Amino acid sequence: MTGEGRRAICLLSGGLDSATCLAMAREAGYDCYCLSFDYGQRHKVELAAAGRIAKHLRAKEHRTIQIDLRAFGHSALTSDIDVPKDRVEDEMKRAGIPVTYVPARNTIFLSFALAYAEVAGAQDIFIGVNAIDYSGYPDCRPEFIQAFEKLANLATKAAVERSAKITIHTPLLKMSKAEIVRTAVHLGVDLSLTHSCYDPDESGIPCGRCDSCILRRKGFEQAGITDPLAALGL
Amino acid sequence: MTGEGRRAICLLSGGLDSATCLAMAREAGYDCYCLSFDYGQRHKVELAAAGRIAKHLRAKEHRTIQIDLRAFGHSALTSDIDVPKDRVEDEMKRAGIPVTYVPARNTIFLSFALAYAEVAGAQDIFIGVNAIDYSGYPDCRPEFIQAFEKLANLATKAAVERSAKITIHTPLLKMSKAEIVRTAVHLGVDLSLTHSCYDPDESGIPCGRCDSCILRRKGFEQAGITDPLAALGL
Repeated sequence: MTGEGRRAICLLSGGLDSATCLAMAREAGYDCYCLSFDYGQRHKVELAAAGRIAKHLRAKEHRTIQIDLRAFGHSALTSDIDVPKDRVEDEMKRAGIPVTYVPARNTIFLSFALAYAEVAGAQDIFIGVNAIDYSGYPDCRPEFIQAFEKLANLATKAAVERSAKITIHTPLLKMSKAEIVRTAVHLGVDLSLTHSCYDPDESGIPCGRCDSCILRRKGFEQAGITDPLAALGL
Repeated sequence: MTGEGRRAICLLSGGLDSATCLAMAREAGYDCYCLSFDYGQRHKVELAAAGRIAKHLRAKEHRTIQIDLRAFGHSALTSDIDVPKDRVEDEMKRAGIPVTYVPARNTIFLSFALAYAEVAGAQDIFIGVNAIDYSGYPDCRPEFIQAFEKLANLATKAAVERSAKITIHTPLLKMSKAEIVRTAVHLGVDLSLTHSCYDPDESGIPCGRCDSCILRRKGFEQAGITDPLAALGL
């Protein structure tokens, strides 16, 4: 994977995974055009984190698109359903797709990334999905990503007129959370800038008890690295 | 195709095609949940038309989602590029994909329809794309629709947990504009409510000279039916 002189669209949520994914795209030489979404998530802390990370990792551009997923409700991230707390990993796995699932979210995010790619003249899209450590989201699976890539290559003017092949990159797909943490540190990502919690308090302090906080803690522990957010109670 | 007792998501732009598509879904027995987009198009006349048509064709629900495609610009429908006028059909065909193309628009629209389907408990999505009369948009082709259907069946919680197969219906795909006009009239669609023009004046009067007006006029002529909008100068 060499991206010297090429542009890439990088989906950036502000979390550990997407920050690491962006750092990997940069390391491969891409000029990175970051895309975040203000989709009515209950907390805006992650958007602030995305802005800091884009700057820290020297993105060429960072756009935030407003979309109204609240109109569809039905997720603990966009409506007032409670975020599950204190689940051990086995419990997460047994319970299936969690209430933090947002209907068709990655399909929508990748569609906007495709529009951005077409306008920015990029043929590469990076998304930090992961199929190893538990998430249970259908739209994080490799077969979903492959199907989107196929769609992308039928959907755009660039693909039709200039046979400009779009590639969806998922460098984290088969990495454990510990490997992600190690890679981030190796690439010089300041992980104190990232935000993973599904249910922070008003000042942005992570809860330490949601699935996302629990998986993050496990990742740092297994990597033998101290989370710079640990001082905040993680 | 029988939709008795089933729910369908119907993409509704306010034009002749999407109104006819909605009428066909209703005729097949579906309860219709209509979805329109306020995507920064230069004129809002078509959104008003969509609202009137949803009511006229007794949709169960009609939602309009705000999305900001202007952030990406690059289309005569969302930025200040001029809409082409007075082109004959051969000229449209030779010129390739027109400037009225909006990057990844149908990919984005179908992604939201998929989210809506998941929330409304629908497994059927109707979109009025047409591959016969000229449009030249890559995301109106049958291979694009098939790829989206495949993606949809990997993307959602319902597809994974309940094997609820999503179907993308394109009843207009192989119809000529004249057939679409005849079908609409046969199903009792009040075509005076529809709006097709890419470049209406401030009061919503169609220009009569853009590609969309020209194809509409040809459709009515070939169907031997008077366009109720003809009095407006079409």
